[in-house]
Amino acid sequence: MYRMYDIITKKKQGLPLTEGEIRFFIEGYTAGSIPHEQASALCMAICLRGMTMEETAVLTDAMANSGDTVDLSAFGEYSVDKHSTGGVGDKTTLIVAPLVASLGGKVAKMSGRGLGHTGGTVDKLESIPGYRTSLSPEEFFEISRRVGVCVVGQSGVLAPADKKLYALRDVTATVDCIPLIASSIMSKKLAGGARSIVLDVKCGSGAFMKTPAEAKALAQAMVEVGEKCGRRVRALITNMDVPLGTHIGNALEVKEAVKILRGEQEDDLYRVCIALASNMLSLVHGWSVEEAEAGCIAAIRDGRAYAKLLEWIAAQGGDTSVLEDLSRLPVSPVCYALCAPETGYIAHMATDGIGTAACLLGAGRATKEDTIDPAAGIVLQAKTGDYVEKGQCIAYLHTSSEALLPAAERAFLESITMDSKPPVENPLIFTR
Amino acid sequence: MYRMYDIITKKKQGLPLTEGEIRFFIEGYTAGSIPHEQASALCMAICLRGMTMEETAVLTDAMANSGDTVDLSAFGEYSVDKHSTGGVGDKTTLIVAPLVASLGGKVAKMSGRGLGHTGGTVDKLESIPGYRTSLSPEEFFEISRRVGVCVVGQSGVLAPADKKLYALRDVTATVDCIPLIASSIMSKKLAGGARSIVLDVKCGSGAFMKTPAEAKALAQAMVEVGEKCGRRVRALITNMDVPLGTHIGNALEVKEAVKILRGEQEDDLYRVCIALASNMLSLVHGWSVEEAEAGCIAAIRDGRAYAKLLEWIAAQGGDTSVLEDLSRLPVSPVCYALCAPETGYIAHMATDGIGTAACLLGAGRATKEDTIDPAAGIVLQAKTGDYVEKGQCIAYLHTSSEALLPAAERAFLESITMDSKPPVENPLIFTR
Repeated sequence: MYRMYDIITKKKQGLPLTEGEIRFFIEGYTAGSIPHEQASALCMAICLRGMTMEETAVLTDAMANSGDTVDLSAFGEYSVDKHSTGGVGDKTTLIVAPLVASLGGKVAKMSGRGLGHTGGTVDKLESIPGYRTSLSPEEFFEISRRVGVCVVGQSGVLAPADKKLYALRDVTATVDCIPLIASSIMSKKLAGGARSIVLDVKCGSGAFMKTPAEAKALAQAMVEVGEKCGRRVRALITNMDVPLGTHIGNALEVKEAVKILRGEQEDDLYRVCIALASNMLSLVHGWSVEEAEAGCIAAIRDGRAYAKLLEWIAAQGGDTSVLEDLSRLPVSPVCYALCAPETGYIAHMATDGIGTAACLLGAGRATKEDTIDPAAGIVLQAKTGDYVEKGQCIAYLHTSSEALLPAAERAFLESITMDSKPPVENPLIFTR
Repeated sequence: MYRMYDIITKKKQGLPLTEGEIRFFIEGYTAGSIPHEQASALCMAICLRGMTMEETAVLTDAMANSGDTVDLSAFGEYSVDKHSTGGVGDKTTLIVAPLVASLGGKVAKMSGRGLGHTGGTVDKLESIPGYRTSLSPEEFFEISRRVGVCVVGQSGVLAPADKKLYALRDVTATVDCIPLIASSIMSKKLAGGARSIVLDVKCGSGAFMKTPAEAKALAQAMVEVGEKCGRRVRALITNMDVPLGTHIGNALEVKEAVKILRGEQEDDLYRVCIALASNMLSLVHGWSVEEAEAGCIAAIRDGRAYAKLLEWIAAQGGDTSVLEDLSRLPVSPVCYALCAPETGYIAHMATDGIGTAACLLGAGRATKEDTIDPAAGIVLQAKTGDYVEKGQCIAYLHTSSEALLPAAERAFLESITMDSKPPVENPLIFTR
């Protein structure tokens, strides 16, 4: 017989919890017999005292088994999932999922909503009229089998412990903690059932992990936890010190994803997506990463990837005419040209600040109950390393009301550092 | 405009909070706009990251002003309060309050309920049939003025922030934290309105503060906070490494208090009560502590203190016949003689373990909703330093059901250390 009070006390004192204690917590919190305030105190103690790898693995397994689990064994070696640890302007799932599916992978994914200053994949997909992010397990399975790609929001049945804890951590400032992030991500991946998993761990000012060392620690924790549970796991650490691509905001990011899949844009976003997709296909087919890369590039050039996107969106009820004609996606009534405050090089963009600016325009949520404006966001006209003249437009701010502009403009400008010399360039992909 | 998320983050990072942030938290939590889980995360962060004296003073003031405050200015220099930081078998308020009132002090007090393994003064008083612990401010003021002593439970109107936080900390393992203990105690003292305050900071295995150094840190925090708010404050640090007196449990402690006030018992409990009362009277009348001591001893010997007890209990609706005839207090159907497991000296009694044993017999609560058995508890027949023979009765366990005995006996025996040599004696009162 465990008592939650004793479990919190033990972790507060920095002691490791036993398997029984961790399972008691997850089962009790999921069932509602342990109240939010006790779970919150334990999360804060975990943030400040840490967890061993053994504790993290048990926590992950308990969360993965707190509800239904998806059995993708019918897809044999072909089921594959990716996870991005988030960050500002990350629309890689929208691109990678149909790309991998067009080359024989089975991408059957659950994805999160926006948290803090970042927008979630599900929020982005919901800017496509008709797209259903909530499907029954049967629909989810059928679409995955038939189309090769299906992306839904986390349901109340799969990993409910994570859903509940994720919402709690979001309001109690207990998000940025490696054991809790690793168990949250990996519990969904495990419950999601994919045989192979590629993790895109973002690193930099716009990500949860600010430094390569932190990102590496998170990546190692997730790979170790995943392998302990019998999955093939690989992690990339990618640079998030600059927003990926140029579009931030829900419909705006859908628009950019379409352009990449049509082969109309070959930038940093394109390169990260190719890296992720080729690692996924390398695990699935046993190809070398180089072979897989060539396959991905070909699938974009010959239109297979874009065709798969349309097939996928249609299968989930989305209106594909807004993808065929991007001007039909939700559009903001206000579009404001933000000008460079001085002449020089953009030395740094604090992407979390850029994310906050997008959030202030209506693209994100400050509290769980806030609604998102699908059309709101930012389109960058200049990025880190670019030379700009004073008064030159460096970004367009899209929003529903002029009243939201001043705070967003202030947040954007505070995120930018100007210099007379060009900055040292960081690699886009740090390590694999 | 403050955000609770940012406040939690700041404290999690170990940074001091501003006055505005602390007041925003207390006002929002009291009003219900800040949910329990956020308050809980902040409390855990405070436990692990600490608070400066300035933060603690602001927190205390904000809590003291979160509801009504009692104006005892009509009593001039005579209003005086004491607080004991709790501990097992602490019935000093039952003795000190009427003793001081019999010598011209005005003791108008709010007191807490039992928390964890300890019983609260209010729980003890409620074992007297009819005693009303919940009074209107008008009744509280009138009885204080007329009788010189009045003890009530914390109302929902006085320091509501403390009441809410106290209940939260009780279930989230965030009790043992000096800034939170100091602000909880002192906010009630400040709201309670007394001009002079004597703090009885207990130290040892049965108290929140295990060592004299911890007790001193708590005492200093409370004295500093109180003086910053214009009160006269003095603190004693007393030994809690042995239960005070011999009775633990609600009605049992009332019984013992009556014996002390009648002058029938002059033990460690008596000595601590004389020390507390004389320091209170020294602040009130400007007497030396020695003069005040002599006055206290005389008031017990000539019956004034006991007469004041009866007057007080009657004023709050209590049936004084149970005090005149102690056999009429609630009595347990089961009284079990617990025997010494071996021959030797009692080298140590872990008083928190003894408290747990009393709790298991029904004298305390494990959760907020538990009810207390007023008759349950323990009467010690031997204490630290005593030589006992194997099989000799060392304690009587009083309870409602024999089924509760085995766990309580186990907890009691685990709390006792036997040795062949007598232990070194600790002073009863460490410092003033």
